[in-house]
Amino acid sequence: MEHLFEKLREYAAGDTYPYHMPGHKRRSCGALSGTMYENDITEIEGFDNLHQPEGILLELQKEAARLYGAQESFYLVNGSTCGLLSAVSAVLPVGGHILMARNCHRSVYHAAYLRNLAITYLYPPYLTEYDIFDAVTPWQVRRALETEASIGAVLIVSPTYEGRIADICKIADIVHEKGIPLIVDEAHGAHLGLAEGFAPNSCQLGADLVIHSVHKTLPALTQTALIHVSGSLVDRGRLKRFLHIYQSSSPSYLLMASIDNGLQFVKREGVEKFFLFRVYYKRMMGALSKCRRLKFLPEDGVRQDVGKLLISVKDTEYSGKWLYDLLLQKYHLQTEMASVSFVLAMFTVNDGEEAYRRMTEALLEIDGDMAKQCSSEYHERALETWEALEAEKDVLPLAAAWDRTTERVALEESVGRYVGEFVNRYPPGVPLLVPGERITEPMCRTIRKSVEQGLTVQGIELEGEKGIFLQVLVNQQGAMEIV
Amino acid sequence: MEHLFEKLREYAAGDTYPYHMPGHKRRSCGALSGTMYENDITEIEGFDNLHQPEGILLELQKEAARLYGAQESFYLVNGSTCGLLSAVSAVLPVGGHILMARNCHRSVYHAAYLRNLAITYLYPPYLTEYDIFDAVTPWQVRRALETEASIGAVLIVSPTYEGRIADICKIADIVHEKGIPLIVDEAHGAHLGLAEGFAPNSCQLGADLVIHSVHKTLPALTQTALIHVSGSLVDRGRLKRFLHIYQSSSPSYLLMASIDNGLQFVKREGVEKFFLFRVYYKRMMGALSKCRRLKFLPEDGVRQDVGKLLISVKDTEYSGKWLYDLLLQKYHLQTEMASVSFVLAMFTVNDGEEAYRRMTEALLEIDGDMAKQCSSEYHERALETWEALEAEKDVLPLAAAWDRTTERVALEESVGRYVGEFVNRYPPGVPLLVPGERITEPMCRTIRKSVEQGLTVQGIELEGEKGIFLQVLVNQQGAMEIV
Repeated sequence: MEHLFEKLREYAAGDTYPYHMPGHKRRSCGALSGTMYENDITEIEGFDNLHQPEGILLELQKEAARLYGAQESFYLVNGSTCGLLSAVSAVLPVGGHILMARNCHRSVYHAAYLRNLAITYLYPPYLTEYDIFDAVTPWQVRRALETEASIGAVLIVSPTYEGRIADICKIADIVHEKGIPLIVDEAHGAHLGLAEGFAPNSCQLGADLVIHSVHKTLPALTQTALIHVSGSLVDRGRLKRFLHIYQSSSPSYLLMASIDNGLQFVKREGVEKFFLFRVYYKRMMGALSKCRRLKFLPEDGVRQDVGKLLISVKDTEYSGKWLYDLLLQKYHLQTEMASVSFVLAMFTVNDGEEAYRRMTEALLEIDGDMAKQCSSEYHERALETWEALEAEKDVLPLAAAWDRTTERVALEESVGRYVGEFVNRYPPGVPLLVPGERITEPMCRTIRKSVEQGLTVQGIELEGEKGIFLQVLVNQQGAMEIV
Repeated sequence: MEHLFEKLREYAAGDTYPYHMPGHKRRSCGALSGTMYENDITEIEGFDNLHQPEGILLELQKEAARLYGAQESFYLVNGSTCGLLSAVSAVLPVGGHILMARNCHRSVYHAAYLRNLAITYLYPPYLTEYDIFDAVTPWQVRRALETEASIGAVLIVSPTYEGRIADICKIADIVHEKGIPLIVDEAHGAHLGLAEGFAPNSCQLGADLVIHSVHKTLPALTQTALIHVSGSLVDRGRLKRFLHIYQSSSPSYLLMASIDNGLQFVKREGVEKFFLFRVYYKRMMGALSKCRRLKFLPEDGVRQDVGKLLISVKDTEYSGKWLYDLLLQKYHLQTEMASVSFVLAMFTVNDGEEAYRRMTEALLEIDGDMAKQCSSEYHERALETWEALEAEKDVLPLAAAWDRTTERVALEESVGRYVGEFVNRYPPGVPLLVPGERITEPMCRTIRKSVEQGLTVQGIELEGEKGIFLQVLVNQQGAMEIV
């Protein structure tokens, strides 16, 4: 079978001169080596067209579908973002009704805004011990579908950012009983279902549309992803239409080649490398079980993904940001993110033994130091984001709310008002507040605490030492009338 | 000033270990060298965030604005496609009214579909001598704005795919008289206004939003682009909102670094390299003026861009595809595209003398051979796309038409029916037919001829030797009623 990097390299070695885009003419012009430029082409003879694939790109996409167990797969060069926008746009008409998990990525909210959808949220259970959302349950989905007759599609995220895996098999059955499609944002699970010891992926479990960020958990370049479609509930023509709309008409061959390259790697070396991945990971978890102050979310391969290491400081006097900074500055270990009460680190199939060793040694040392210096000054119990969200159920429709006039008010004065902008910590980009939601006391505390601990909060304005400002809807009465 | 590739390389040389995305962990795993993987990161400490820039990315975007003479500029990693979608979405509400050139790129039509816009088309003058559209004229814009009161924004393409440049200065004045914004799709003009001897770019001439494909005419990687905004007619907040929506939340640092790299190159070496570009190009045009059968669209630096070489075979017995194939197979010169009666080649600031020499020698030789073997069998006069388009003014609204039920009919039986899918040659992706347009006899001939000559036509279905099929709207009467 032909592969893209090999074919690009072969082409670059030839003497054909490019009188076409890209304008760099396969020559570097600055800081970085020429490799990227040499292999960066456009839709010339023999290299097919992502938006109408008939040759090598069609074959590679078929190969991806076989690997994941889907009927059809598509390479994405605009990330899972464009996969989610396309999936939602393809399955629902403008003004349709979606059932979605409240812990979805922001791009799902964007899709709902673009398509003017009515939204019913699934608020996933909250794991208070670790301050994270769990995955949504089949029971929640059933109850929502029984209550709301007009729902036309269901979208959930699994694994979550922290690695919680939903029971997709049961959820798919429940959703299909109603004759509507299930979309799974499996952005964090591109490695699932590819080897023994890992949970199956959602294509294998009956989901209609599944989105994978290849760059997140497999060795592929940032911004690469896949969307898979199976069954007869999704109009394939509409899916292709929206993939065409939301992606560049000049897709990068480097990005596409890196998807191919990543999947080739899985086929060629997957059995061995995934085996080692699990061995290393379990060995590290075993060693870390000696910690006395730090806690770790246990992996079980069924409902918690291998690869995520959630290091909780919840029962200590320290904050997530403190641990994050310490790991970075003292040990040169750059983790994925800090939250109020934990740090998240990611391991993938491309990590060698060193990655596990360095993390294990650092955490054992930190834990030992913490135990010695134990202070009485325990930090305030991490705020319950869950409680803050649960209270927000008095909401205005997103699409209308986000287009309304807003005014700027101080955080503390915003309680009871409808928010006019998305507010989220980054990463992971799951909204704390969605335009049209009512701001609660606990949410204000969550936002202030996040800012005070030095986390990145998007959608707010900071001024001076203590000034946190929010955009809220002007004239709530008017807003209510429109609804 | 800090630059991105340099900073990435420095970071790659350090010992900080990545416990975060991307999953390749800065290590290659296959065919291609590690350079790309080593330098491919995500939003870690010190590398800013494209969707909320405060550090290096903000500085680089300011630098881009200064270079082009805009008030604010934004890096795009989903091509000009996402720039055009964002520009249109930002300036018009859902259901708004746009005045747009009929030779726009398909992504502008996609924006109109997503936002359910009413469309008034500007049909640009047609240069029958070369079978291409000219740029739209100020007079056309004035007439349309006087006729249609509800137009809320104007979008034109300049330079066109073949390099025709509009009088942006006058057009901007006319559009601003009405108090509405002018968007210029300057995807093919990222090199304009950067050096002497080149036309100014549209930022310098008063356009409100300008989109540049950096990868098309400057040395940057495929899929990279810029959008510039100036003046007070565009809501910057809404522009940022839609850029956030239509672009990956995991933007590629390689793509961003290559934009920086391309612009750095212009600043560092632009004066000399752009001077040479013009010298080489003019020398080639001088040499080619000896041709007896081949004709060339003359460059003038004002209304025709430097860099495009349109080689016309219109008055010969040969087709564009024949010349394209000959250049590729015999001379190993890969041109940008073949049309019915011409071939288009692109030159950029990153071409050396060899590029001009090889093309000149090949064309002189081909022209000499053509003169010797002159046959009496002249090929049918290239069909007038202009005539075909002009006749199509009985149209249904795009957004409604593209969502209607369609049926498949043979090309010849489609005359008089409303088309249900976009039909376009690729490249350049300017639609021959837009959903809701009525199919005419000349358009059928254009499509058949394009297929017979081996050009790529998208949106049709081919079956066997002569079978060309189209999707047309079911139940025209019903369609008319909806309107």
